[in-house]
Amino acid sequence: MTNTNRRVLLKSRPQGEPTPANFDIVDAPLPEPKDGEYLSRTIWLSLDPYMRGRMAEAKGYAANVNLGDAMVGGTVGQVIKSRNPKFKEGDYVVEYAGWQSHAVSNGAMSMKLDPNAAPLSAALSVLGMPGMTAWWGLMKIGKPKAGETVVVSAASGAVGSVVGQLAKAHGCRAVGIAGGKDKCDYVVKELGFDACVDYRAAGGNLFKEIRAAAPNGIDVYFENVGGAVQAAVVPQLNDFARVPLCGLIAHYNEMQPSPGPDWRLLLVKRATVTGFIVSDHFTDMEGFWKEVPALVKSGKLKYREDIVKGIDNAPEAFIGLLKGRNFGKLLVQVSDDPTRS
Amino acid sequence: MTNTNRRVLLKSRPQGEPTPANFDIVDAPLPEPKDGEYLSRTIWLSLDPYMRGRMAEAKGYAANVNLGDAMVGGTVGQVIKSRNPKFKEGDYVVEYAGWQSHAVSNGAMSMKLDPNAAPLSAALSVLGMPGMTAWWGLMKIGKPKAGETVVVSAASGAVGSVVGQLAKAHGCRAVGIAGGKDKCDYVVKELGFDACVDYRAAGGNLFKEIRAAAPNGIDVYFENVGGAVQAAVVPQLNDFARVPLCGLIAHYNEMQPSPGPDWRLLLVKRATVTGFIVSDHFTDMEGFWKEVPALVKSGKLKYREDIVKGIDNAPEAFIGLLKGRNFGKLLVQVSDDPTRS
Repeated sequence: MTNTNRRVLLKSRPQGEPTPANFDIVDAPLPEPKDGEYLSRTIWLSLDPYMRGRMAEAKGYAANVNLGDAMVGGTVGQVIKSRNPKFKEGDYVVEYAGWQSHAVSNGAMSMKLDPNAAPLSAALSVLGMPGMTAWWGLMKIGKPKAGETVVVSAASGAVGSVVGQLAKAHGCRAVGIAGGKDKCDYVVKELGFDACVDYRAAGGNLFKEIRAAAPNGIDVYFENVGGAVQAAVVPQLNDFARVPLCGLIAHYNEMQPSPGPDWRLLLVKRATVTGFIVSDHFTDMEGFWKEVPALVKSGKLKYREDIVKGIDNAPEAFIGLLKGRNFGKLLVQVSDDPTRS
Repeated sequence: MTNTNRRVLLKSRPQGEPTPANFDIVDAPLPEPKDGEYLSRTIWLSLDPYMRGRMAEAKGYAANVNLGDAMVGGTVGQVIKSRNPKFKEGDYVVEYAGWQSHAVSNGAMSMKLDPNAAPLSAALSVLGMPGMTAWWGLMKIGKPKAGETVVVSAASGAVGSVVGQLAKAHGCRAVGIAGGKDKCDYVVKELGFDACVDYRAAGGNLFKEIRAAAPNGIDVYFENVGGAVQAAVVPQLNDFARVPLCGLIAHYNEMQPSPGPDWRLLLVKRATVTGFIVSDHFTDMEGFWKEVPALVKSGKLKYREDIVKGIDNAPEAFIGLLKGRNFGKLLVQVSDDPTRS
């Protein structure tokens, strides 16, 4: 067993796009679990757009990371030493250990994983926070009805891919918006969306291409990006449209406010825009557990992972995530996953 | 009995602010009711901001007025000739006769008024469309809880004045925003709001003055105006704030889209913005009828009328309404009200 804990710290707050210089990679002594705690080695680290907010000074919707602290993030680990009777050596856990190779925890927020039920890493994507985000936003805010049109931006991503597939499962027309031909092909051919618009190729025709893909207008717009996509979608909302506002990745690196759509568009269409963050709703996920694991098991709900090896590569991978460079759920493999061949 | 019907027609569509030249005032022969119809003389004509939308070419949320047609609007009239057994000569009705002194109707959308229950004109303000708008937006979208802060713009107006008084009745802190000292004094001293911000006097201090009036942040923002008020309010929304989006009078004369607030503000606060128009909900007003007439009768819900005499003055009064010149519910008295001394 190693004696060191490899950690990625927040060194400075980004001005605009994060750069590798905003991070510090250090080796610390392996922490020792106290009574009631366990020590785990991290196997999988999830990288997600919301982490950009945690790097900022400005007040966001969760405690931001202090300078010199490890970056936060959801992880899957294996218990390697335990002084907590609920967690035994060898147990797999989904936890919130952050960007480091090892962590101690009192287990209050940890959940044991059955490695036979699903791949361990699924607890960070389709069966974890991104899957719950997709389900909550679509089902509780979007409230799709069969026959309606659901448009989702960042459609090949961890959240968007689940949104579109759930929309299909509920009898809707699912239209994705993604960057690049490969992602669009994947969204339509692999995930079964009805159409996908490549916003990078569309350029000034974005409005028209979305119109062509959603000829009956848009009943639900699951918003992950903002920017030009938002500007092209909002005027195409139908009467009584619902907009689950999940993310605005196009704006996360901006230092100044970016104006949003004219509220006259929302008024005339009697549309509803609802910002949400899934952690407000973790205790109300019964519907998710009833629906989503079965869809995954049956193969009706597919997901794709984009795996980067080694925690030292987390900063670069995260910077790429904000530029849309990943293709599927971005995960850092921090150490060996014994359940994978 | 007169032989002519005085009518105000839409002559041309306004480019920006409406002017008197956009209207035509003509005398037409008195229409003759056919079998199943009645003829009424209009007593009260309601002037409301939404009418600006009906003058436009652009697709709005209701059929726009065609050039050469009479302007639309809610009215209270008295039946003067009837070939419909449900409506007798002398009956008072609330109807949608538009900007004219007389109209025929089949009665399908008319409702008889009891002149002893409330002043006739109340059917166009607190007990009519504006009152229902206030009630629906506040109660069904705003969902105020006791102890929360409700902010309403255009607070001395037909809708805003009811919003704030209902908020008080439900145990909330009610903060108005209005233009001018007289209106603000009225809102606080007559209507019983906790505070009122004069946006005209505030100038660059608008944000700070709203903060001082709503020191615990804003849980419900009932939006009637848009513009600088919106820009100052939205950053002060609390977590899980609700924004009933009822009107945007500051923008109705604009020819180009006006950007709205940065959606990052809505996302971080998990706020909900819901555009609505009351006519979608006329059939679901049970709660309104249970609550509001009793509050009016007991004197707990006050209202103020701004009365202009003569239909020829309707265009000028309407132009002033869009500039905030009215003080209270703007009504045109088209003919004598026998129930008023």
